[in-house]
Amino acid sequence: DFARLDHHRGLRTGQSEVIFCQGKQPEHIIKILRHLGDKELNVLATRLDIPTAEIVLPHFPDALYDRQARCLLLRPLAEPTVPGKILIMTAGTADLAVAQEALLTARFMGHEVDTLFDVGVAGIHRLLEQKELMDRAEVIIVVAGMEGALASVVGGLVEQPVIAVPTSVGYGAHFQGLAPLLSMLNSCASGVGVVNIDNGFGAASLASAIVRRIMRAGKKGDLT
Amino acid sequence: DFARLDHHRGLRTGQSEVIFCQGKQPEHIIKILRHLGDKELNVLATRLDIPTAEIVLPHFPDALYDRQARCLLLRPLAEPTVPGKILIMTAGTADLAVAQEALLTARFMGHEVDTLFDVGVAGIHRLLEQKELMDRAEVIIVVAGMEGALASVVGGLVEQPVIAVPTSVGYGAHFQGLAPLLSMLNSCASGVGVVNIDNGFGAASLASAIVRRIMRAGKKGDLT
Amino acid sequence: DFARLDHHRGLRTGQSEVIFCQGKQPEHIIKILRHLGDKELNVLATRLDIPTAEIVLPHFPDALYDRQARCLLLRPLAEPTVPGKILIMTAGTADLAVAQEALLTARFMGHEVDTLFDVGVAGIHRLLEQKELMDRAEVIIVVAGMEGALASVVGGLVEQPVIAVPTSVGYGAHFQGLAPLLSMLNSCASGVGVVNIDNGFGAASLASAIVRRIMRAGKKGDLT
Amino acid sequence: DFARLDHHRGLRTGQSEVIFCQGKQPEHIIKILRHLGDKELNVLATRLDIPTAEIVLPHFPDALYDRQARCLLLRPLAEPTVPGKILIMTAGTADLAVAQEALLTARFMGHEVDTLFDVGVAGIHRLLEQKELMDRAEVIIVVAGMEGALASVVGGLVEQPVIAVPTSVGYGAHFQGLAPLLSMLNSCASGVGVVNIDNGFGAASLASAIVRRIMRAGKKGDLT
Amino acid sequence: DFARLDHHRGLRTGQSEVIFCQGKQPEHIIKILRHLGDKELNVLATRLDIPTAEIVLPHFPDALYDRQARCLLLRPLAEPTVPGKILIMTAGTADLAVAQEALLTARFMGHEVDTLFDVGVAGIHRLLEQKELMDRAEVIIVVAGMEGALASVVGGLVEQPVIAVPTSVGYGAHFQGLAPLLSMLNSCASGVGVVNIDNGFGAASLASAIVRRIMRAGKKGDLT
Amino acid sequence: DFARLDHHRGLRTGQSEVIFCQGKQPEHIIKILRHLGDKELNVLATRLDIPTAEIVLPHFPDALYDRQARCLLLRPLAEPTVPGKILIMTAGTADLAVAQEALLTARFMGHEVDTLFDVGVAGIHRLLEQKELMDRAEVIIVVAGMEGALASVVGGLVEQPVIAVPTSVGYGAHFQGLAPLLSMLNSCASGVGVVNIDNGFGAASLASAIVRRIMRAGKKGDLT
Amino acid sequence: DFARLDHHRGLRTGQSEVIFCQGKQPEHIIKILRHLGDKELNVLATRLDIPTAEIVLPHFPDALYDRQARCLLLRPLAEPTVPGKILIMTAGTADLAVAQEALLTARFMGHEVDTLFDVGVAGIHRLLEQKELMDRAEVIIVVAGMEGALASVVGGLVEQPVIAVPTSVGYGAHFQGLAPLLSMLNSCASGVGVVNIDNGFGAASLASAIVRRIMRAGKKGDLT
Amino acid sequence: DFARLDHHRGLRTGQSEVIFCQGKQPEHIIKILRHLGDKELNVLATRLDIPTAEIVLPHFPDALYDRQARCLLLRPLAEPTVPGKILIMTAGTADLAVAQEALLTARFMGHEVDTLFDVGVAGIHRLLEQKELMDRAEVIIVVAGMEGALASVVGGLVEQPVIAVPTSVGYGAHFQGLAPLLSMLNSCASGVGVVNIDNGFGAASLASAIVRRIMRAGKKGDLT
Ligand SMILES: Nc1ncnc2c1ncn2[C@@H]1O[C@H](COP(=O)(O)O)[C@@H](O)[C@H]1O
Ligand SMILES: Nc1ncnc2c1ncn2[C@@H]1O[C@H](COP(=O)(O)O)[C@@H](O)[C@H]1O
Ligand SMILES: Nc1ncnc2c1ncn2[C@@H]1O[C@H](COP(=O)(O)O)[C@@H](O)[C@H]1O
Ligand SMILES: Nc1ncnc2c1ncn2[C@@H]1O[C@H](COP(=O)(O)O)[C@@H](O)[C@H]1O
Ligand SMILES: [Mg+2]
Ligand SMILES: [Mg+2]
Ligand SMILES: [Mg+2]
Ligand SMILES: [Mg+2]
Ligand SMILES: [Mg+2]
Ligand SMILES: [Mg+2]
Ligand SMILES: [Mg+2]
Ligand SMILES: [Mg+2]
Repeated sequence: DFARLDHHRGLRTGQSEVIFCQGKQPEHIIKILRHLGDKELNVLATRLDIPTAEIVLPHFPDALYDRQARCLLLRPLAEPTVPGKILIMTAGTADLAVAQEALLTARFMGHEVDTLFDVGVAGIHRLLEQKELMDRAEVIIVVAGMEGALASVVGGLVEQPVIAVPTSVGYGAHFQGLAPLLSMLNSCASGVGVVNIDNGFGAASLASAIVRRIMRAGKKGDLT
Repeated sequence: DFARLDHHRGLRTGQSEVIFCQGKQPEHIIKILRHLGDKELNVLATRLDIPTAEIVLPHFPDALYDRQARCLLLRPLAEPTVPGKILIMTAGTADLAVAQEALLTARFMGHEVDTLFDVGVAGIHRLLEQKELMDRAEVIIVVAGMEGALASVVGGLVEQPVIAVPTSVGYGAHFQGLAPLLSMLNSCASGVGVVNIDNGFGAASLASAIVRRIMRAGKKGDLT
Repeated sequence: DFARLDHHRGLRTGQSEVIFCQGKQPEHIIKILRHLGDKELNVLATRLDIPTAEIVLPHFPDALYDRQARCLLLRPLAEPTVPGKILIMTAGTADLAVAQEALLTARFMGHEVDTLFDVGVAGIHRLLEQKELMDRAEVIIVVAGMEGALASVVGGLVEQPVIAVPTSVGYGAHFQGLAPLLSMLNSCASGVGVVNIDNGFGAASLASAIVRRIMRAGKKGDLT
Repeated sequence: DFARLDHHRGLRTGQSEVIFCQGKQPEHIIKILRHLGDKELNVLATRLDIPTAEIVLPHFPDALYDRQARCLLLRPLAEPTVPGKILIMTAGTADLAVAQEALLTARFMGHEVDTLFDVGVAGIHRLLEQKELMDRAEVIIVVAGMEGALASVVGGLVEQPVIAVPTSVGYGAHFQGLAPLLSMLNSCASGVGVVNIDNGFGAASLASAIVRRIMRAGKKGDLT
Repeated sequence: DFARLDHHRGLRTGQSEVIFCQGKQPEHIIKILRHLGDKELNVLATRLDIPTAEIVLPHFPDALYDRQARCLLLRPLAEPTVPGKILIMTAGTADLAVAQEALLTARFMGHEVDTLFDVGVAGIHRLLEQKELMDRAEVIIVVAGMEGALASVVGGLVEQPVIAVPTSVGYGAHFQGLAPLLSMLNSCASGVGVVNIDNGFGAASLASAIVRRIMRAGKKGDLT
Repeated sequence: DFARLDHHRGLRTGQSEVIFCQGKQPEHIIKILRHLGDKELNVLATRLDIPTAEIVLPHFPDALYDRQARCLLLRPLAEPTVPGKILIMTAGTADLAVAQEALLTARFMGHEVDTLFDVGVAGIHRLLEQKELMDRAEVIIVVAGMEGALASVVGGLVEQPVIAVPTSVGYGAHFQGLAPLLSMLNSCASGVGVVNIDNGFGAASLASAIVRRIMRAGKKGDLT
Repeated sequence: DFARLDHHRGLRTGQSEVIFCQGKQPEHIIKILRHLGDKELNVLATRLDIPTAEIVLPHFPDALYDRQARCLLLRPLAEPTVPGKILIMTAGTADLAVAQEALLTARFMGHEVDTLFDVGVAGIHRLLEQKELMDRAEVIIVVAGMEGALASVVGGLVEQPVIAVPTSVGYGAHFQGLAPLLSMLNSCASGVGVVNIDNGFGAASLASAIVRRIMRAGKKGDLT
Repeated sequence: DFARLDHHRGLRTGQSEVIFCQGKQPEHIIKILRHLGDKELNVLATRLDIPTAEIVLPHFPDALYDRQARCLLLRPLAEPTVPGKILIMTAGTADLAVAQEALLTARFMGHEVDTLFDVGVAGIHRLLEQKELMDRAEVIIVVAGMEGALASVVGGLVEQPVIAVPTSVGYGAHFQGLAPLLSMLNSCASGVGVVNIDNGFGAASLASAIVRRIMRAGKKGDLT
């Protein structure tokens, strides 16, 4: 009775079941995982911190836990089922945890993912060399802390939709991610949509919604 | 020499020329419009306030100016050339100016647009009745001021990508759009990308990038 | 001498004794509980964190401590004495701690409480199905983190007074509850009063003041 | 098509039609007023600034406009139909505009209103002398700018529900109403609900919802 | 060489030596205390947290440490040498730590101190009963968290200078003391000076400067 | 009935009648001035902007209006009646408006005032040369915009109480006075009390309370 | 007496006389200009808005006023006297006003200036093409609004010191320059110093201090 | 593949390799240090907290770790190779950690460093006595927490470029360094560039860029 599972949502919004664990008690998480797991579905649990994971994991011997992304998967990831690549880029090595949450979410939702890490704008040639990889993606997710300038530079280079994820990587006047959040919202490049600070999951969900729409069009071979 | 026009950007990012007029002197705007207009391109000028428009307009007898959207078009809008509908929704009547900027931008970029105005969540049945219209769109732009809850409700109802535009419509603890901005960034619905407060232009640009990608897939009839 | 107990306040404001424990030393809490408990009154202690509770509890063998709500009751709760239901709703499972503080406070003040948990707006049909339960309440308390949109949706569905409690459940641009706080203050639904972030106690106190006023009118059978 | 009037809301939430004019074009306001006025309903328009009012008024010869409250009424106020007094208090003379919006809203919704103006806490005896007037009200609305301390003092004196309205009256570190908003949200008196800065309308709407609930109980003469 | 002691400051500003320990390494604190203690002066060390105090204390067998105030005194307090009382008031029991820092500082600077704790405005009669005690003071320090309304109420009751100290006691929209800070800066009572959040030391220093000035006038028996 | 004049306040708090005009309608100001002026009292009206002053002034032929300070005096200032100088210093020429409000308030309250303008810390020798003038004052008011460093430098030079007034003089990251406000609250000099941004009135009121206390001691020739 | 001119500052800090006009009365500005102009010095007046300039200009027939930069020069600019180029870059055309203030200041201080306008990162090839021009400068000033990413990209390309000036060009979540300010402070490129929002003057002053130091070394031909 | 080392950056920007360790996993830091160390370069690792350092250090027996600065050096510091002194000043003893990060960075980059610690403005004579030491420096770094006034005072005394580093030393309305950050950005002294809160590394990088430029000029003995 504490959790009202939404069995229609999958149908309605085309998304699988994902549990947001922050603020939930371990026993609640276990019950929800049990309930959902019964239906032969894979389940993704995000924002599951390490101490809670250590309580939850013993109840699910097949589950996998990614310590960097703080994500649990009830069963191993299946092969990608949706054509159309999602490219995940990061500005620095310290943004990897958020990128990894996005990666697991995208893979969990059935997508192929390419990655390009540590290509911050302070060494812009590292970025420009990778134009080809960018061209192969349907959607690009840019994960960046510090000043978040990577989103603008990438947005100005490509024609694909860009999803920008500010991260809390930084200190001082970074204000836990406010600096790149504002930066990305004010990007001088158009065609950039922003999600919450550190929200790798949300970026991948939006990327998934876009790629599924593209795939659907590809299947029909016609839009009207 | 005060403005370095980027003739490659169209090719690179797939977007037409748009001039951001805020902070530019009237004579600068006139020169840029002249320069770009010479190439038989249509040009969109956004954030052109009424007093400046009154100085600029006499120089371009064919131009159209939309006072609500504060946008100028050098030539009349052509018929949509890109299949795939963009739906623009607003929570209230006061959000129309921003919605209109989005609409003109989307039409300028060649898209078909549907609109659904004044469907705020305080009368949620007005919204639920319109599910069919939502289903017809490839991408949905939600324009909302006040608390911006419309983005979450729409995001939970549909499987398409949702682009949320917070507006500065409100007062007091609204802080000129901060309330719906934070609300949208924290949306409990996934698959929502956010653009800057009052940025109808940016929302339409992102929608355009998505729809063009979809159309390209539709044309090829296959994704891989 | 460090605490000046206000024995008139109960009479003046119609409320029982509640101790706010945050920032108080354990020995102070014990002394106040002893002093108040002597008068055969039940006492509620809120914001009593678990380490402090472990120091305080051994001194009061009849006391009950709710770890989720971080509340202590000196004696078991009595049966409700005030007719008129208070409905407590939450958007997510993670809002339960705050809802539980509200529930204990309302029960402590003599009220009947109904609950409806985990009915966030991302799956709005779960909410609309529960209209009947809402109709049975005199006052509705809506507890929500994330973007706090539930308050607006409920406020637009019912004619009862709605008390909105933003919670600190969220991350990033949530700013520890600022996002739903601003959202609720800007609700497009009228008839919504807001209390402090995570203030389940305050919401229940206001609900109690309203229900007691209603009950008083019900007893008199006439208002003028 | 720019405005979707919600004819069910009256039934659903027990509230009459009120138009929020900020950000709406004069012609839109006129059309909505015409449409609603046709049904023999009185209509209240709030946040109608003076220049817009001067365009709107000539179209409605029976309408009344209150310059201080910036409110328009399509027809004169009827006699109160709902028993149960609402008391509106202000801390200073400069808070009168907001108080007047609350007063007109409450009267428009059929309520009796008492007022007590300029009783700020810097001269607390002015306040304590008025305890009897407070006792006669079912609900008390406290309108205060500066530091907003009046809400705490009143909340500590009475047992009725208190609705606190922070106002933008102040300067400097007042931040356009942020100071009393935070002050009221953190009130050490319980039983206080807060609405948006300068939101006299919202305070009266909540007061109305409470008083109507009380009246309904009074009519039935019994609550269970 | 890491600390440049200011032996002239005592002469110049009339204040004794006080060490601010936050952010200083234990060995630095020990060296400074040693250096200053050599000159037969008493020394006050503030913001000395408990773990650091446990390293520092064994080196100074005569020193006293107050865990609540987090203050160390190198030698016991002497009897007050300056006539003229400073009254320290708190709104709640949880404000005692800050009040205690003020009390020790004032006593260290040679003043007589009266105290009046837990007289918050939610029970205003507790405050009004104490007018006589207030009248006996030369300066009043008001320490208050939550909404900080006590400063305004006291400021409106007395003619003495009032020094207001906002505390970090509160939660949610309290923002670690921002709420009472803004409240006190916007006090509708004039004659109130504000110091930093939790700055009991600063309040006592200012009170001391005022009382010493008064005493000096008292000694001369004439001002010109 | 819109204004409840507080005839006891003078007695209670030792302060004359001052009207805060911001947000008050001209006719209200005129009525209050009339009412108070009848009692042969001088009256000070602060925050009276120029357009409102032009409506008010013709009704009071003896009144004086200071455009820089935006203050009105009903009658000319009397000679100082309270011995003990208040020194008002400003960092820059642009802070003069606030300093002038403080000066008029202090003179209105019967005090002697010295002034020292434009002695910002960027040319610190200009400040150090004036030590003697500082020594002659009982209390020093420091008015400073920009980064507000003057308060710290003065506070470190003198033993008198210092009252710091941040001003809104600045731009950009000054945030209308937030920069010097925070600077002054965090002053490394002790013995500094802060009032609201641009609050020359409040600074003078506090200075007056201090000087009156000093004078009272001087008269009695003894403190105990 | 309202302005204390600092005749030593030029000697002490190597800088000429500059008047900051914001908040100063026209008559004050005129007096200061007169006083300084008498000494055969050129004078620069910044932040002189157009209406004030129209009052001031007629008194100084040789003075020049730049409407875009809002700067006045008492006499025409002399030829550069200090070798070593300062390069001023802007991200967009709308940043020109701030760049122009920097340019006039640098020229006034005797420097040679190169400019490179409208090279925002959304079209990064426009920027990379200009590496040679950057290489010719001793110091680079980067003026950028929107998200301010240009500072990071330039800082990563060059070895010279970079001075970043955030501008208030933008809207919504730009918060009048806060977005590029935070962005620049968090730049992932090192070697970047930041000045206040829109502070073209400050950037040029710092650049001047650097170039003068370089020139001095160049003259001596040796550093030790 | 998680880290893309930028071997051109040294050439391009004239700076050695520095690793920013915050948010990086220990194994990543070890791999990067190994990779870079192989090339016989010294490497500086900043923001390496003590627990992580304890994992990393055993792998590099020649490395040195400074606990106060939280910096690791792979090999001992070489003798300074660049003439031209950098002076590092602090306002208080608690600012030493940040000053030490700046010192190590400057020394790592080959510079000579002078230091002047604990010369806050509350005892301004301690500062003025040190003018000669200041005169010997090419660039001055001012590290200050609390209200950060030291930057303004130093900036007004010297003609060299001043780099201001706000620190998080303070509490309450300090907001973790916001107070001195705003203070320094609004400095009334010109010629001051600001870096991020606690960014000793950034300050030293900018100082290094300036001094290298000066040295280069000194070598050439001519600037044009
Ligand atoms: N309303 C708008 N809001 C944000 N960005 C805009 C807007 N209109 C145009 N832009 C962007 O600004 C660029 C033109 O900037 P500019 O060269 O300064 O005119 C366009 O290519 C868009 O990317
Ligand atoms: N969780 C809470 N949040 C806010 N206020 C509370 C809370 N619990 C109790 N209070 C208030 O604090 C008062 C008691 O404060 P104290 O005398 O310090 O224990 C109660 O009468 C309530 O008005
Ligand atoms: N400039 C000012 N800033 C802040 N408070 C003021 C100011 N001028 C007057 N006041 C206060 O406001 C009170 C009068 O308020 P009112 O009764 O609304 O006119 C005075 O007694 C002062 O305490
Ligand atoms: N303490 C610091 N604060 C800010 N930036 C730093 C710091 N230390 C190093 N950096 C920058 O971060 C870069 C290295 O980042 P990374 O490749 O993630 O290790 C360096 O080249 C510097 O530009
Ligand atoms: Mg793009
Ligand atoms: Mg969705
Ligand atoms: Mg309702
Ligand atoms: Mg109450
Ligand atoms: Mg007083
Ligand atoms: Mg002092
Ligand atoms: Mg560089
Ligand atoms: Mg200087």
